[in-house]
Amino acid sequence: MIAVAERARAASHGLALATRARKDAALHAMADALAQHEDAILAANAEDVARAESAGTPPNIVDRLRLTPERLAGMADGLREVAGLPDPVGEVVRGSTLANGLELRQVRVPFGVVGMIYEARPNVTADAAGICLKSGNAVLLRGSSSARSSNAAIVAALRSAVESAGLEPDVVQLVPGDTHESVKALMRARGHVDVLIPRGGAGLIRSVVEESTVPVIETGVGNCHVYVDRAADLDQALAIVLNSKTHRTSVCNAAESLLVHADVADEFLPRVVTALQDAGVTIHGDPAFAAYDGVVEATEDDHGCEYLSLDISAAVVPDLDAAIAHIRRYSSQHTEAILTQDLAAARRFTAEVDSAAVLVNASTRFTDGGEFGFGAEIGISTQKLHARGPMGLPEMTSTKYVVTGDGHVR
Amino acid sequence: MIAVAERARAASHGLALATRARKDAALHAMADALAQHEDAILAANAEDVARAESAGTPPNIVDRLRLTPERLAGMADGLREVAGLPDPVGEVVRGSTLANGLELRQVRVPFGVVGMIYEARPNVTADAAGICLKSGNAVLLRGSSSARSSNAAIVAALRSAVESAGLEPDVVQLVPGDTHESVKALMRARGHVDVLIPRGGAGLIRSVVEESTVPVIETGVGNCHVYVDRAADLDQALAIVLNSKTHRTSVCNAAESLLVHADVADEFLPRVVTALQDAGVTIHGDPAFAAYDGVVEATEDDHGCEYLSLDISAAVVPDLDAAIAHIRRYSSQHTEAILTQDLAAARRFTAEVDSAAVLVNASTRFTDGGEFGFGAEIGISTQKLHARGPMGLPEMTSTKYVVTGDGHVR
Repeated sequence: MIAVAERARAASHGLALATRARKDAALHAMADALAQHEDAILAANAEDVARAESAGTPPNIVDRLRLTPERLAGMADGLREVAGLPDPVGEVVRGSTLANGLELRQVRVPFGVVGMIYEARPNVTADAAGICLKSGNAVLLRGSSSARSSNAAIVAALRSAVESAGLEPDVVQLVPGDTHESVKALMRARGHVDVLIPRGGAGLIRSVVEESTVPVIETGVGNCHVYVDRAADLDQALAIVLNSKTHRTSVCNAAESLLVHADVADEFLPRVVTALQDAGVTIHGDPAFAAYDGVVEATEDDHGCEYLSLDISAAVVPDLDAAIAHIRRYSSQHTEAILTQDLAAARRFTAEVDSAAVLVNASTRFTDGGEFGFGAEIGISTQKLHARGPMGLPEMTSTKYVVTGDGHVR
Repeated sequence: MIAVAERARAASHGLALATRARKDAALHAMADALAQHEDAILAANAEDVARAESAGTPPNIVDRLRLTPERLAGMADGLREVAGLPDPVGEVVRGSTLANGLELRQVRVPFGVVGMIYEARPNVTADAAGICLKSGNAVLLRGSSSARSSNAAIVAALRSAVESAGLEPDVVQLVPGDTHESVKALMRARGHVDVLIPRGGAGLIRSVVEESTVPVIETGVGNCHVYVDRAADLDQALAIVLNSKTHRTSVCNAAESLLVHADVADEFLPRVVTALQDAGVTIHGDPAFAAYDGVVEATEDDHGCEYLSLDISAAVVPDLDAAIAHIRRYSSQHTEAILTQDLAAARRFTAEVDSAAVLVNASTRFTDGGEFGFGAEIGISTQKLHARGPMGLPEMTSTKYVVTGDGHVR
C-alpha cells in the first residue's frame, strides 16, 4: 500500500502543476476511453453481476452494480462535464500587501493523494477519478470487492487515457487486494495519503471515521427533518413533504422525519397522512399521528433512523422550541427544512438548527452539489471540519500561503 | 468527560447566537478579571512553580510555567485585542440565487465544542478561551498537569467574567483530572467534541493525531528550510538566514535547515558559516559545509530534525531541482523560503514546494498569525484539511448553507 501511495505521490507532483488545458484534455480522453473500452468493461461487469447473483445478492444491489451502454455513456458525460468546470487550483482565496510591504497570497493547491473507499456502484470509480484529476489530486480507489472486475476494467481504460494525454497514469490507481486488510492499510497510511473520503452506508463510514489515522471527510448519513410550522402554507407544505420523502428514497437528502406544529395538526395531519400513505409511505408516528388508520406507533429508534425507504417518522410538537430541540436530539445534521411564512420563525430555525444545510420552504432534496450549481459532487460532508454540505471541486483542495518580499527580516 | 462536554454543548447554543457586542463585553470582562484575580492566580502559579522546581524540572521549562504581573497583563491585553477583531460568525462566504429562484447562502457558524490539549504555558489558557469565545465556540481546556493550579485559577477568573457578561460560564471549562486518562477521554469523545487542537511538542501532537476519533487540527511541527539560490542577493541572504535561525530558536517557524546552490557555495559558505557560528549556532553540515572549522558532520537524522535550538543542518545542492527534492524528502511542510532574484526560480519554488507557507526573499519567522495580520492565532496548521498555516478566528468556524425558497420541490 505504501508503495502504491508513493507512486501516486510521485505522479501527483506533475499533476499539481498541469495546466487546465492538459487536465481537460485528459478528462475528454478518459470519457472517450470509456466508449472505446465499452466491450471490455461490460464483459468485466457481467462477471461481477454473475458472481453477485450466484451469491444470492438482493436484486436492488445487483442493479446498482450493473453497467449498461447507457450508464457507461452517462459516466463519460460526467467526465466531460468536469472538464467544463473552472479549475480550482491556483485560485487566490485572499491576498493583501502587509504593512511591511510583504505580499501575501493564499492560493488553492491540490491535497496531493486522495483515498476513496466506496461501495457497489462502479460509476463512482470514473466520477472520483475525474474530480480528483481536475482538482490536481492523485487518487487511490478502493471500491467494493463485488465490483472488482468492473473497477479494474474502468481504471485500465482511464489510465490509458491519462497517459495518452501526457500525464502520469499513476495519478489514477486501484488499491490492490480486495480484502479488508487493504482498507485497513489505506486508513493507516498517514503521511502517504493526505485525505480519505468514504462513500457508502453508515457502517462503512463509521468504521473509516473511527479507525483511520489519515484525515477523513465524513460523508452522507442523513436523517433529514421537515418541520411544518404553524405559519406554514399547508398546500406548499404538503407538496414539499411528499417531494422530500418520495422523490427518491435511497438518497441521503431524502426526508426521514416529519414534525408538525400542534396548532395546525388537526388540519394538516389528515391531509399529510393520506397523501403519504397514497404514495406508499409507512408512517411511524407519535400518539397524535398513531390515531390515524395505518400509522405505526413510533419507537425511540424510529426518530433517529435513516430509513432510505418509503418510511418516515412523524411527531407533533407544541412549538418551535420543541421542534428545534427534537432536531438537536435526533438529527444527523445533514439537512433540515422549516416550512413557514413567519419570518421570525424562519430566522430562528436557520440560526439555531446546526446542520450542513438549513432550508426554508424548499424540499430537502435540494441539498446536492448539482442543485447548488457546483457542477460535480464528490459527496456531501456531514462533518464540520474543512467542508460541510455538498463538496465540489474547490472542496477537493487545500491552500498554501505564498509570501514575497525583498529581504524582509523580523 | 461526556457530561462536561454535554454541558459545553448546551452552553454553546446560546454562545453561537450571542451578538458581537455581548461577546466583546465578555472578553473585556475576562481581561479585567485576570487583573482582579491577580493575587489568586499568582499564588496558584507559585504552587505550580514550586512543585516543578522540587521535581527538578529544567529552568527553561520552569520559566515557561512562571507567571508575573507583566505576563498576566499581557494575557489581558491579548483578550482585549481579540475583542477588537471582526466577528467571523455570520459572515456570508458565498451566495447566489439559483436558476430556479432558490436563494443560497454559505454562512460561517461556530464549530460548537472545541477541545484544546496543550503543554506548559498557562497563557494558552486565556488565549484559547478568548479566541474560542469570540468565534462562538465552547472550549474544553486540557493544559499540562504541571500548570494545573495556575490553569484552575485562570479559568475560575474567566468563568466568573463570562457569567457577569450574561453568557453561560460552561462555555469555558477545564477538563477534570490531570492524568492521561482525561486526555484519552477527550480524544474519544466523538460526537460530543467537534474539533480537537493539540498545541505543544511533536510527541504530544503525534499521539493526539494517531489516537483521536474526534477530528483534529494538527499544529506546529516545523522543519523549515531556507534555500539560497544561485541568483540570491548574498547580503540579503545572509541577513535572512541569520534572522530565520537565530531570531527565536524555540518556535516552529525558525529555520532548521539551510540549502545553498553549488554555484554560490564558494562565496557564500565562508560568510554564512562565520556569521552563524558568531551567533552561537552549531552547523550540522554535509561534506561541503563540514570542510569548514567547527562544522559538525551531519547525519541522515539531522536533515529531518526540528532542533528548536541554536543548531542548523546545512547542505550544498547542485541545482534548484535538487533543492526541491531535498525539501520534499525532509520537510515537515510548515515553511520554506527561497532567496533569489531570478523570477523563474521563484515561480518554480513557490509552485513545486508544497508547504503551508512558501516565502520568497523573506525570513521564515514571518509565518505567524500576527505577522500575517490575522490579529490572533490559535496555532499554525501543518495539515491540509480545513486550515493550513496560521489559524485566526475564521479558521475556528465551520459553515452551513442556508437556502430559502417559496415552495420549491424537485
